[in-house]
Parts: sequence; C-alpha cells; structure tokens
Amino acid sequence: MAVATNECGTIPELMDPLAIIVPTRNTVDNVARSELVEYKKHSVSESDSFHRAFSSVIVIAQYFGLMPVYGIRGSSASFIRFSWFNPHVIYTALSLIGTFFMTSLCVIRFFKYGRTFEETQCSVFYGCSFSRMLLFLLLAQHWPALASRWEKVERVLAHHGYPYHQRHKFNLITAIFLSVSFIEHALSHVRVIRLAVLCVVEDKMDGICTFFYNSFPHVYDYFPCSIWNGIIMFIINVICAFAWTYMDLFIVLMSIALADRFEQLNRCLQSIHGKHVPPRFWHHMHKDYNTLSSLVKTVDSCITKMVFLSFANNLYTVCIQLLNSLHPPQNAVQMVYFCLSLGYVLLRMIVVSLSAASVNEQSCQVRNILYSIPATSFSVEVQRFLHQATTKDIALTGLNLFSVRRTLLLTVAGTIVTYEIVLVQYSGIHADERDSTAHGVARRYCL
Amino acid sequence: MAVATNECGTIPELMDPLAIIVPTRNTVDNVARSELVEYKKHSVSESDSFHRAFSSVIVIAQYFGLMPVYGIRGSSASFIRFSWFNPHVIYTALSLIGTFFMTSLCVIRFFKYGRTFEETQCSVFYGCSFSRMLLFLLLAQHWPALASRWEKVERVLAHHGYPYHQRHKFNLITAIFLSVSFIEHALSHVRVIRLAVLCVVEDKMDGICTFFYNSFPHVYDYFPCSIWNGIIMFIINVICAFAWTYMDLFIVLMSIALADRFEQLNRCLQSIHGKHVPPRFWHHMHKDYNTLSSLVKTVDSCITKMVFLSFANNLYTVCIQLLNSLHPPQNAVQMVYFCLSLGYVLLRMIVVSLSAASVNEQSCQVRNILYSIPATSFSVEVQRFLHQATTKDIALTGLNLFSVRRTLLLTVAGTIVTYEIVLVQYSGIHADERDSTAHGVARRYCL
Amino acid sequence: MAVATNECGTIPELMDPLAIIVPTRNTVDNVARSELVEYKKHSVSESDSFHRAFSSVIVIAQYFGLMPVYGIRGSSASFIRFSWFNPHVIYTALSLIGTFFMTSLCVIRFFKYGRTFEETQCSVFYGCSFSRMLLFLLLAQHWPALASRWEKVERVLAHHGYPYHQRHKFNLITAIFLSVSFIEHALSHVRVIRLAVLCVVEDKMDGICTFFYNSFPHVYDYFPCSIWNGIIMFIINVICAFAWTYMDLFIVLMSIALADRFEQLNRCLQSIHGKHVPPRFWHHMHKDYNTLSSLVKTVDSCITKMVFLSFANNLYTVCIQLLNSLHPPQNAVQMVYFCLSLGYVLLRMIVVSLSAASVNEQSCQVRNILYSIPATSFSVEVQRFLHQATTKDIALTGLNLFSVRRTLLLTVAGTIVTYEIVLVQYSGIHADERDSTAHGVARRYCL
Amino acid sequence: MAVATNECGTIPELMDPLAIIVPTRNTVDNVARSELVEYKKHSVSESDSFHRAFSSVIVIAQYFGLMPVYGIRGSSASFIRFSWFNPHVIYTALSLIGTFFMTSLCVIRFFKYGRTFEETQCSVFYGCSFSRMLLFLLLAQHWPALASRWEKVERVLAHHGYPYHQRHKFNLITAIFLSVSFIEHALSHVRVIRLAVLCVVEDKMDGICTFFYNSFPHVYDYFPCSIWNGIIMFIINVICAFAWTYMDLFIVLMSIALADRFEQLNRCLQSIHGKHVPPRFWHHMHKDYNTLSSLVKTVDSCITKMVFLSFANNLYTVCIQLLNSLHPPQNAVQMVYFCLSLGYVLLRMIVVSLSAASVNEQSCQVRNILYSIPATSFSVEVQRFLHQATTKDIALTGLNLFSVRRTLLLTVAGTIVTYEIVLVQYSGIHADERDSTAHGVARRYCL
Repeated sequence: MAVATNECGTIPELMDPLAIIVPTRNTVDNVARSELVEYKKHSVSESDSFHRAFSSVIVIAQYFGLMPVYGIRGSSASFIRFSWFNPHVIYTALSLIGTFFMTSLCVIRFFKYGRTFEETQCSVFYGCSFSRMLLFLLLAQHWPALASRWEKVERVLAHHGYPYHQRHKFNLITAIFLSVSFIEHALSHVRVIRLAVLCVVEDKMDGICTFFYNSFPHVYDYFPCSIWNGIIMFIINVICAFAWTYMDLFIVLMSIALADRFEQLNRCLQSIHGKHVPPRFWHHMHKDYNTLSSLVKTVDSCITKMVFLSFANNLYTVCIQLLNSLHPPQNAVQMVYFCLSLGYVLLRMIVVSLSAASVNEQSCQVRNILYSIPATSFSVEVQRFLHQATTKDIALTGLNLFSVRRTLLLTVAGTIVTYEIVLVQYSGIHADERDSTAHGVARRYCL
Repeated sequence: MAVATNECGTIPELMDPLAIIVPTRNTVDNVARSELVEYKKHSVSESDSFHRAFSSVIVIAQYFGLMPVYGIRGSSASFIRFSWFNPHVIYTALSLIGTFFMTSLCVIRFFKYGRTFEETQCSVFYGCSFSRMLLFLLLAQHWPALASRWEKVERVLAHHGYPYHQRHKFNLITAIFLSVSFIEHALSHVRVIRLAVLCVVEDKMDGICTFFYNSFPHVYDYFPCSIWNGIIMFIINVICAFAWTYMDLFIVLMSIALADRFEQLNRCLQSIHGKHVPPRFWHHMHKDYNTLSSLVKTVDSCITKMVFLSFANNLYTVCIQLLNSLHPPQNAVQMVYFCLSLGYVLLRMIVVSLSAASVNEQSCQVRNILYSIPATSFSVEVQRFLHQATTKDIALTGLNLFSVRRTLLLTVAGTIVTYEIVLVQYSGIHADERDSTAHGVARRYCL
Repeated sequence: MAVATNECGTIPELMDPLAIIVPTRNTVDNVARSELVEYKKHSVSESDSFHRAFSSVIVIAQYFGLMPVYGIRGSSASFIRFSWFNPHVIYTALSLIGTFFMTSLCVIRFFKYGRTFEETQCSVFYGCSFSRMLLFLLLAQHWPALASRWEKVERVLAHHGYPYHQRHKFNLITAIFLSVSFIEHALSHVRVIRLAVLCVVEDKMDGICTFFYNSFPHVYDYFPCSIWNGIIMFIINVICAFAWTYMDLFIVLMSIALADRFEQLNRCLQSIHGKHVPPRFWHHMHKDYNTLSSLVKTVDSCITKMVFLSFANNLYTVCIQLLNSLHPPQNAVQMVYFCLSLGYVLLRMIVVSLSAASVNEQSCQVRNILYSIPATSFSVEVQRFLHQATTKDIALTGLNLFSVRRTLLLTVAGTIVTYEIVLVQYSGIHADERDSTAHGVARRYCL
Repeated sequence: MAVATNECGTIPELMDPLAIIVPTRNTVDNVARSELVEYKKHSVSESDSFHRAFSSVIVIAQYFGLMPVYGIRGSSASFIRFSWFNPHVIYTALSLIGTFFMTSLCVIRFFKYGRTFEETQCSVFYGCSFSRMLLFLLLAQHWPALASRWEKVERVLAHHGYPYHQRHKFNLITAIFLSVSFIEHALSHVRVIRLAVLCVVEDKMDGICTFFYNSFPHVYDYFPCSIWNGIIMFIINVICAFAWTYMDLFIVLMSIALADRFEQLNRCLQSIHGKHVPPRFWHHMHKDYNTLSSLVKTVDSCITKMVFLSFANNLYTVCIQLLNSLHPPQNAVQMVYFCLSLGYVLLRMIVVSLSAASVNEQSCQVRNILYSIPATSFSVEVQRFLHQATTKDIALTGLNLFSVRRTLLLTVAGTIVTYEIVLVQYSGIHADERDSTAHGVARRYCL
C-alpha cells in the first residue's frame, strides 16, 4: 500500500523536485512550501479533519447543555459561532441554575449534619459539576477561535495528510466511554430502586417518592415530594453525571488528536532514517514541530483548568472509594457494585492520565530520531531542532501546577496513599461522631 | 495607540537607523546604545520608576517601625540613606525590645504549662514577628544600594520604558492587602471583646482588663492589669500583626516589579515575531535579559531570608488552623470566624506563592519565542541567548533551599498533608495531657 | 597482556592506517568500517557472544516451562525459532493452567475468609507467577528477533570484542542466584514439615497429607487429599517459586550484558585519554554509542513489563514481611527463618535495582570522558556526542512509568516506609476482625 | 593589598606576556603553562597546602586510633605511607576488636529484651562506630594516593595560590567541633554520675561500679564489675564517641577544602568581569575547572561511604531524639540536657549538610559568570566551558544514591517527618510490651 510504505505523506515526492529546483530558482522557502500545500490539498479526505471528527462529539454534549456553540455541523470551522443569546446558552444557563441549587442544598446539609469527609460527597459532586458546566461555557466562547486555529494548522501540515480514520476513532472512543459510564450510573441507582421496590411490596408505600427521597435526601429535607420536582431533580442528576464523564472524555479526545499529529511527524522522520535528505527537509520538519508545539500551548491554555479539575476530582473519588472500603458492604450485590465502581474510577483515571501523557510521550520521540542522524545530514537546522526537542517541555498541564507526563501516574498513586493515611486518621478521630450522625443522615425512610 | 501597537518601546525606531548606520559607522555597540538611551530618556514618566512606586509602600511600613531609612520621598534613589542614629531606627529598636519581651513571656508560659503543639502559637507569632523586624532592619541597611542598583537597571533598560501604571498598581495592591488583613485582625478581637462585654454586663467587671487578660494571658500571669500597660501590649500586638502582613505584601510587590520587567521584554520579543531583525537586536535583548537576571539575583540575596520565613510561617499557620479543625468550634460566630480565618491564610499563601513564582514564569516565557525564530535570523548570539534561557534557572529562592516555582504550590500542599498526619498523631498521644492542661491554660477569667 | 593494555580492542591499530588512508582514499566511512569489522572478526571468541552466554540460562528456564523457544543451543541466534505448536509451549500452557487454577482458589478463599492485607499473599504469589509465565511466553515470541538484533549489534561493535568471560560470569551468577533461592524456598517448607512430623509422631496421622493440607490450604478446602494431587500442587508451587526467582535473575543478566557493553566503550575512551585521535575516531565512537543506546531501547521495550512486575512484587513482599514483623514469631526457628527471609528479599531487591541501574550508570560515564577532551580534538562530532550523552536518558524503565536509576533505590525505600504506615493503620483497624478470622484461616490441622 | 585587588593570583600578569608571545612563539599551551607554574611556585606559602593544613587534623585522629598512616608530618604528601604492620594499625585493630565486642553484646541484649526501636540505640551506636573505624582504615590505605593527587592538583593550579589561611581555618573548625562535642559527651555522663553519687551518698554503695553498670548495662549483664574492665569499656566508649564526631568533622573539612578551590576560580573569573581576555585564558580556566571537577570525583569515590553513613546515622539520631520527646523528661536537668542534645544533633547535621553542599554550590557559581561574557570574548572554548558547567553535576554523593545539594536539607527534613510517623505508630503498637520490658531493661540499679 502506498500510504504504508511512504509515511511522510507527500514530502518525499516533493523533496526531489525541490532538490532539483534549489540551484535554479532561488525562491523563498515559504513560497515553494505554499505551492506544494496547494497541490496536495485535493487528495485530503476532509472528513478526518479535527473539526469534522469532533463535531459529532460536541453535538452529543449539546444534548446535555454543554458547549453551547452554533454551526458545529458546518463544513469548516469558520461556521462556528458563539453568542450569548441563543437557545443552547439558555439551556446551559438553566442547567447551571439547577446545579447551583443542588450544590447549595448539599452544602447546607453538610453543615447541618455531617462535617465528616464522607459527607462531602454530595457537595463535591454537584459543586464540581457546576464548575464543569461553567468551564465548558467558557470554552465554548473560545471554541470558534480554537477550531479555526486547528484548521489553519491542518492546512500548514497538509503534506502530512489527516490522521488515519480519526473520525471513526473518536466516535468509537465516545461510544465506549459513554456506554460504560451509563452502565455504571444505572447500577448506582439499582440499589435505591431495589429499596423502593421493597418498600412498595412490603409497606404498600409510594415507590417513586421513596426512590426520590433516598436519591436526593438533601432536597426532600426542605421540599415536599411530587412526581414533577422529582423528575427535574433526576434530570439535573443525569446532566451532572454526564458532565463528569464528558469532561474526561473531552480531555482524552483532545489529547489523542494532538498526539496523533506528533505521531505522524515521528513516522515521517522514521521513514527517512538512513536516507540522505536535503537540509531544507529538516527546515520543514522543524517548522512543523514548532507549529505543533505552539498548538499544544494554545490547546493547553484552553483546557488546563479542565485537566486540573479532572485530576483533582478523580483523586477525590478514588480516596473516598478507598475510605469506604474500610466499612465493607454487607451483601453481595453491594459488594459487586463496590468493586465495579472502584475499578471503573481507577480505570478512567488511568485512561485519562495515559491519554493526556501521550502528547508528551509522542513529542519526545523525535529526540531519538534526531540523535541518530548521520554526520553528513547534520546541520545548524538539525542542531536547533535537537536542542528544542531536548529542552522544550511539550505537555498538557493542570493550571501550570503540574505537567501531565507518564510518571505523573505514579505520583498520583503515591499521593492517594498519603491522603488515605490522613483520611483514615481523621475518620478514626471522628468515628464516634460519625456513627451517631450517620444514623441521622443515613436514615433511609420508606414513606 | 502607539504604545499598544509598538510593544518594544523605542527599539524598532532604533533598529532601522541602526541597520542603516551599521555599514557606514563602525561604532561599538555600547556607544550606539547609550546615545539611544539618552535620547529616549525624556519621554519616560519618572513617577512609575521602582523608587517612586515603592516609596509610599515604604512610608506606610515606617509608621509601624519597619524599614528605617531616610529620604524615601526624594526624587531619586540616591537620596535614600541609612544611619544607625535616626528616629526611625530608635522606633524600630523599641518595637524590637517590646516584641522580644512578649516572645520571652510566651516561651516561659509554653514551658510552664503546655508543651503541646497548639500552645506554640503565641511563641511562634511573637518570635516570627521579632525575626521579621530584624530582617527589615537588615534590609534597610542594604536598601539604598538596592534601590540605586534598580535605578541603574531602569536606566539601562530605558528603551523599554517603565512598566505601565506601576505606581497605581502597587498602591492598589497595598490597599487591598492591608484592608483585608485589618478586617481579619479586627475579627480576631471580636470574640474577646464579646466576652469582655458579657463580663461587664453580667458580672459588672472591669471590661477593659478582661479584654487585656484574655488577649495577652502570657503577660498578665506576671503583671498586674493597668490601662497603660494594656495599651502598650495592644500596640505591640498590632505592630506584630502588621509586620506579618507587610512581609508577605513586600514579597508580592518585589516579585511583581521583577516579573513586570520580564513581561516587558517578552512583549517586545513577541512584537517582532516573524519580522526580520538585525543581529544586534538580539545582542541588545540578550544583554537586557542578562541585566534582569542579575537583578533577580541581587534582589533574591536581599529578600531570600524573608521568603523562607514567609513560607515557613504560612505553612505553620495553615497546619495549626487545620489542627484546630479537629476541635470544631461550638457556636456559629466562632464557626464563621474560623472559616474566614482559614480561607484568609490559604488565600494569602497562594497569592504570595503565585506572585513569587511569576518571576520564574515570566523569565521562562522567553524560551518559546526564541525557539520559533526563523532560520534566517538565527545567529550565535541567539544560540547563546537560547542556551541561557533554557539552562539558567531564574527564580526567587528561600535561603537557596528551594526555588519558588509554580509547582512549589503543590509541594507545599503535599507537605501540609504530611505534617498534618504527624500533628494529629502527636496530639492524639498528648490528648489526655492537653485536655487537663488546656483547662488550666484556657481558663478565660472574668475579673 | 595485550588485551589488558589496549582497552580499545582493535581500534587503535585501525586508527593509524585510517589516518594514513584518509588523504589518499576518499572512501565513505561505512565502507572502511565494514572492511575493518571483517578483518577483525576472526579473532573474536564466539563463546562469549550474547547468544551463547545466554543459551544455558534459557535452557534452565525451559526445564520449568519458561521461554518456550526452539534451537537455543544452535551456534548462532538465527537458529532460534518460536512456534505455537511445540512441546515447550504445551509445557508452558500446562503450567499456566495449573497456576491459574491455584490463583482462582486463592482469590475465592480471600473473599470467603480474610479480606485483610495479610491474606492477599496467596493470591498475589500465584497471580504474579501466572503473569510472569505469560510475560515469558510473550517474550519467547520476540526472543528470536531480539537475539538476532543483539548479534547484529555485536557484529557492528566487533572491534571492541566480546565482554571478557561473559559466559562464565552469567553461569556463575545464575548458579548463585538459584542456589540461594533454593535454600530459602526449602527453609520455607521446613516449618510445615516439622509440623507434619510432629503430627505423625504424636497423633499417628498421615504426615504427607498434613504437609499438603498446611502448604496449600486453599486447595484442600475443596478437594480431598491424595498423594497424586498433592504432588501436582507441589510441582506447581515449585514452578511458581522458580518463575519468581528467574525473572529477577533474567533482569539482572540482561542489565549486566548491556552495562558491560557500555563499560567496554568507556574503557576504550578512557584508554585514549590525552592522546590525539583523528575526528573519525569520534565518529565511530558516537555511532557505537548510538547503536548501544538503541539496543537498550529495544531490550527495554521487551522487558519493561517484567521490570515493573519485579519491582512491584518485591515492594509488596518487603511490605508484607515488615508487616509480619509486628507479630513477632514465637520460637527461635521461626525467628531465624523470618530474619533470613527478610534479608533475602531485601538483598534480592537491592541486587536487581543496582544491576538494572548499572545500565544507566555506565551510559552516563561517557560524559566525564568527553568533557575533558583537549581543545585540539574537539569537533562538531564530539559536540554532538556530548550533547547526546548529556541530554539522552539511557535506562531500563518499568512500563515507562519510572526509569531505573541508582536513586530509585532510595525512592523505593521511602515508598516502603510510606506504604508501611498505611498498612499498619489498616491492620490496626481490622485487627479485631483479623484476630477472629485468622483463627479460622490459620487453623492448621493435624489430620 | 595586592591579593585583594587581584583575585586571579598570577594569571593577569601572565596573560599579557602570553598575549604578546602568542604571535611570535607557537608553543603548545602545556609548555607555556608549565613554565608559568614554575616561575610562580616560589611565592606560594606551603603551610596552606592541603597536606599541611590537614596533617594536624589527622594527627588528632591517630590519638584515637583512626587514619593509621605514617609520615603525616612530612613536608610533602609523598612522605605519607600506609603499611599493615605498624603501631598505628595495631592500635586501630585493638579499637576495632573492642568495638566489635561491644556491638555483639548490644545485639544480644537487643534480642534478649527489647526488640523495640528505642532499644536499637546501643547496637546502632557501637555498630556505626565499628563501620566508621573500618572506613577510616580503608581510607588510610588510599590516603597516600589521594594526598599526592591533591598535591599534584595544587601544583597545576599553582597560579591561583593556596586558599587563604586554610591551615588556621581547619584548626579553628577542628577545635570548635571537638570541644562542643566534648561538652555534649561529658553532659551525657552527668546524669549517670549524679545517679552514682546519689547511690554513694544514700546507700553507701560502690559509686564507680554503679556508674559503669548504668553506662554499659549490656556488658555487666555478663561480666562482673571491676575497676579495670570498667576503664577499658570507658575508653572504648570515648573512642567510639570521638569516631562519630570526627567523621562529620572530616567530611566538613574535605568539603571546605574542595569548595575553597572552586571559590578561588570563581573569584578569578569575577575579577575579569567586563575586561577583554584572550581566548587562551578561557582555555586555562576550563582546564582548571576540569581538574577540580575530576578532583571532586576522586575525593568522592574515597569518602562516599562516609557521607552515606554520616547522613544515615544523623537521620537515625534525630529520629530517636524526637521519638524520645514523646516521653518528656521528669526533671529540669534532664530537660535541659535533652534540649541541648537535640539542638546539638540538629546543628551538626545542618553544618555537615551545608558544608558538603557548598562544593556543589561553588561549582555552580561559574555558570552565572559565563552567561554574562560579552559577545566579543565568546568562543568555542567558552561554549564548551558553559555547556560543561550547565550539564555536569559536581557534588559529593552518598554511595551515588543521592547527591549532596542544598535542597537535600529540606528532603532530609521531610524524611525525618515521614519516618517519625512510622516510629510513632510502631511505638504505639508496642507500647504495652515496651512498658513492661522497659522496666526490665531500664532498671537502673544501685549496687
């Protein structure tokens, strides 16, 4: 297959004519380059462009009130618009109000009863969901610019072509992520539904209200139960759960999109291993590398808050789950759910970490190729390229406080262990208080 | 606006003539440069110079006995003098004596009763305040030299102009910092005043003495209560509290002043992005970068002890506050004060960390610009500049034991967690002893 | 001795003719080099080649069902083959099935009784052994390619000769490792045998069944005792114990083989210290260094999972042993065994760490030599070599999550301490439960 | 003063003639250099040479059986000899036997009673002293070579002269170190002597035997008390205490000697700041830097085990002292001794850390000077020098497991905190056992 044997896209074909042209025409690099880009553009399958590959992912988000932008189904990124007065933003605003309301009730309940670490779960869940929606709203404002920027980079790197089957890959990952997440979320309701069914059967009670009462105790401390407000609470809960999953998914997809670009470059460089190439080839490659590294910087400035929130929230969830492991569940159903749930959170955390780290990994690969360039091909341009590749640190960051590298996973593991110690200590001290208040709080009532 | 479009100050104007001049006149760089600086000097607004921007901040400090230097209101740094025999120094000496007296009484009380970690608060507060005053006294000796040095740097970098509205920025930050701190300090007295009022109302006691007794128990174990010594104690206490806040403020302002300088340089470099500039432009920029980096070193050698003390003290305070969270306050007023106080300390720590880290951040920005210089502009000078920017570590340090980078914030957070574990353990072991002695110590008396 | 005085092998002899040839013949480096390699090949003792030195080590592994490859005793690596249908693989498959069976029984027992950290020992031991066998099966598939790759590298580096007495060194290390491990394993059975003997003597019971019952309690909860299934269990147990030791041994030998190669290069470079050498010498050395560094990368990609598993398992074992130290053994025999066992595990961990780290250490040595090259010998080639040596990080890694450097040992020590804290805390909380279940689990019966 | 104004020693004088000579005589650098060294040698005060400055320090060690070398008072390092058959070695051997005897008794006692962390003090004290003596014996073998090496370096760097007043500095540090240590050791006996005096006064007992019994309980469990074996035990104890202090002192002095050399180089480089110097000046400086950096490597390979032992032992001692702080002393005398002792250990640890780190610090200073070299002076030699200064890590190490940098101090502080947690936990678990055994062990008897 032509594609497989020639990993550099159109560059090698181009190199020969260029090599011939160089002595005769003394054109500036940029001109030759742009010509080249023009003539290769037609062979590019637009459906694997970043904009097209991402559009369906964003459409799904919009069903749940995230990423309120217009024109996402347009043929190019230039159709995307953001405006404060459009139905998407209104939907988002309603979600934000609902989530804020839930958060407030949780915080009030926390100060009224609990004040132990375990009782923070409700506040943290709705509070983080609120932050997530806000971050996606802020991102939506920058999305038109970001998508255009990315499209421009794609045009500059057109000789590499689009990453192979990017659109299908993205859709597949989205499908897996969301369905696994859906199953986990459904299972988390099973326990309460079972309880409600028991109540209905045994005590002839209102099963639906029992379900709502037990799912949202922080709400029904203050409001009477009705089918309508119950459904609204349930919708808010589902939107929050979706926002949680979607943010992780979003980080994974953005990381893969970036890493794939670096991988293309690496494959191109590897394909010329041992061959003699003209100096201007290195010039092009260095420029491409620079373009990508500044794209990473732009993307990072847009999603750095999300990366931080994602890692912080996952860290919190793992700690809480491990802390719960101190009070082993009574029956087998809870046991299975507990194991699945912990496994799910750990797996998701690892997937997010490794995906985000792959940007850094792929960008570092270029070093090894540059080290082994034969002395005859070595030039000042290669030296600059190598210096940049060895000293510049290309990676996604969390609020610039940490870079996401592969080693971060071990650091996070170590941090979980350390935090766990503190939590165990604190929960040991508050054990008596918790035991008494837990009864008050956890009193699941059959109405 | 001319300023906004031309981020390099006077450099671009200069570059063209220079480019023309270079082949004709073979002048040494320094000569051309100094001419240039002369001709641009007049357009500079002196009121944003470091000396002028800082002068009002220092005048405030002098009201509280810190920074005893002369001539701070002079038009240039050369008017500043330090002498051991002047009223400022005498005021400082009196404060030092008063604080030393308080510290001694606290230490004695610590060994007599407590010996638990919670009981160290009094000693640490006054001990650190004593150190702070001493450090500011030592700094005052070096301040004339430092201010002159900075003024010299400003003259060398005159083509960049002064940072925009530096004076107003400094005054605004000072106002916010001091007023927030004043509110927190006032609130910390409210509890005791409330107690005193209760005593007056219920028991018809001497409210003022009750207030003093409860605020300074370490003093009134040994001395009889009088309105006069009470006021003196109160003044010492206020001066100490001010010194605490002021040191953090001082570090923040120094950091911003340095970071702003690097930011100017970065904006200048960014403004020529993609343009062709003569090699001597890079020569100038490298020299400017060098000048700034050695200024950072000079400043760091002056305030490195303060940075260490600030981080250590803030770390201690957060640990103590968290440890207190184990014994939750009884009533709502205390609860609110506790939350505000913890939030205030955390916020201040974050502000100091991020400000101090901004020096490092801004100095690193230059790398990204240098990496993307086109091959035609690349020269040995740029290579040296890049090598320096990638290998030299420009940052404020704490006694050279740690550099203040953005990642330090996470390290500090991790350290707090670890220390918290130890403290909880120790306090668990000493729990019984503390409970008994606490009664003895905390016995708040209505006289 | 000629070999001892001339550390560079055949290079110096070669350098002179080359130096003479250079002006006359304008041959490409590669041609001159390959000639050279041809002419030196005859003097090489093939028995110290990697393939030959490793063959007997692999043959031993095959007795225990690991590394199921063909033709390992062939005269060159090209004879090695892997096929899914051969007796070795069938043997491996049987071991895998047996180990999987044991692991399942352990996991079931864990959920039925225990659920404390101490009770994970059985599951972890068999589970890790299962992973080990799987990893060796996967490695066997890549072994023919890896051995050929190594042989090719040996041909390229033929002018350095083979590492001195590599074959004997490998056999000696294998002998020591396996015999020490055998003694430890035998001792671990002594306690149970002693118990069985006591049972026979005192209660006239079936000693063999008692031995089996106490060694494999997870099996005989579900199956009746018979001499035949007992022997099968015993064989599986021995195979698992061997796989544990062998993986560590394998990592040690691979590391030494790599480190020895770098050491050869270092000795060669040190031998020309202060002498004047032609630039093409540095060119050759740089190429050799590159060849070795890419060999390390290839080897690392093959064994990185093993390195991770080895470190994780050793970490776990040390933690468990230290945790057991909280319940000191009753009698002197157990005490001695406990001390020996802990010492053995620690020693093995240190040996594996330091061996694996020696690859990194030896590869870094080259820096110091390159720094002190006289100015007259300095060239672009040397500069590239030095840049690579100072920026490239050559080391074995564990799943790319950590690099094995010497400092890792301290990090591991610190991690053990931290984990120990958690374990002590958890075991403190579960103490009561454990005490009760331990009775149930640890009920060692005399049948 | 000529010395103060001309920080480069003889180099500037030399530079001018060299600059003149360069065009006329085309001599190799080395020749010119060695001439220079010859002509400058006479002006050097030999009494500040490393050998002379260190000789009195070693003589003191020999009084206590350490460093058994001959001819230490000779006028040059070439007089130093080591031989296995000389009185010094015999003295050392006797000390080793005595210390080994003490260690064995402590270990036996540990296994008989204690097995808690506090009870390891005796074993660790004598065990580490034994290791120290062994290490000094091994060092003594390498001392003649090391001293010669240093003397050779001093000749090569003769144009810098000897560090100013090195001999006096060394003697002063030795005096302070040993006298403070003597006071601390004496105080540690005061408590026991006081007890013995009380016994004599109250119970009319044998005071001397009481003193010995309480000082060396591990000995008098097995041997009857006599004045003679008591004195021998006391001598061994004093020798061990001296060895402990002396090793720290030795590391401090070696570090200062190395750091002073780098400081000389730095001062020389700083003195030419802004001046124009010929390229060969940089060549000389680079060579000097290289010479020093390889000297550091040699010294490190000799004392790296000592550095490790020193840090490990100090870490252990601080942990033990802090652990003892959990059981606060009853009376004021013990309280004062406890505070002094903890302060002494902490101070010593900080002094050793900072001294050893100063080698790294001074070697890094050179970077800042090289960065600011004007473009006209910049050459390939300077580039190499700068590259080496920024990438090479010159520092003393502990068994190559850690480099001693300034930041190590914070790491050690953090490690102490972490270990303390474990110790508190363990001692909490063993509390009951310890309380009972402590009575048995700590039963201080009035005979």
